Amino acid sequence: MSSETVAYKMVILVRQDLKLPKGKMAAQAAHAAVEASIRSPKEHLKAWHQQGQKKVVLKVVDQQNLFKYVQMAKENNLTTAVITDGGHTVVEPGTITCAAIGPDDEKVIDQITGTLQLM
Amino acid sequence: MSSETVAYKMVILVRQDLKLPKGKMAAQAAHAAVEASIRSPKEHLKAWHQQGQKKVVLKVVDQQNLFKYVQMAKENNLTTAVITDGGHTVVEPGTITCAAIGPDDEKVIDQITGTLQLM
Repeated sequence: MSSETVAYKMVILVRQDLKLPKGKMAAQAAHAAVEASIRSPKEHLKAWHQQGQKKVVLKVVDQQNLFKYVQMAKENNLTTAVITDGGHTVVEPGTITCAAIGPDDEKVIDQITGTLQLM
Repeated sequence: MSSETVAYKMVILVRQDLKLPKGKMAAQAAHAAVEASIRSPKEHLKAWHQQGQKKVVLKVVDQQNLFKYVQMAKENNLTTAVITDGGHTVVEPGTITCAAIGPDDEKVIDQITGTLQLM
């Protein structure tokens, strides 16, 4: 498949069990998105950006569940970024809050996270 | 001031009047953060990233209020990214949802947005 036909997407998985306040969740999701962007291959980042930076925030039930999807993403050679909160305010220091996968081929990502619900 | 002594921060301003659902807000904040990261000078991005990517999500009351702070940031030569939602789901197409300022010197940013409340 040529790179022109690939639709790029990023998904951000957020732990539901932490019940993060919305501002905290937004900051953690932003952290994951920036981290994955920095780590991703430049051509993926460029294509994703040109296509409008599609991203979706999805629920995972807990840390174990989050790692399950991150592991599958790694096995498919997708960029991943797992975010640990500094724990200054809402959660314990070192708490894993969320993870970003991609940006990469939407079809490949959907095979991994397609059954997860929108946050 | 040498670059070593500057503490870098990004602030993300989110419109309160839209009452965005938390998943939507997280996606929009992530969009703003990535966009501002891409636009920012490479040395700011690098320093901010090395310092742990500090970011804070703040409330602005409406679009006019958002633009007021973005304008002040521009006048101080800070990187800004205003995000317009595609409007596929929650809000009308073309709705301005949020903006990111920085990453830049925390002191300079605080002079502009220091009175805004955390989301």
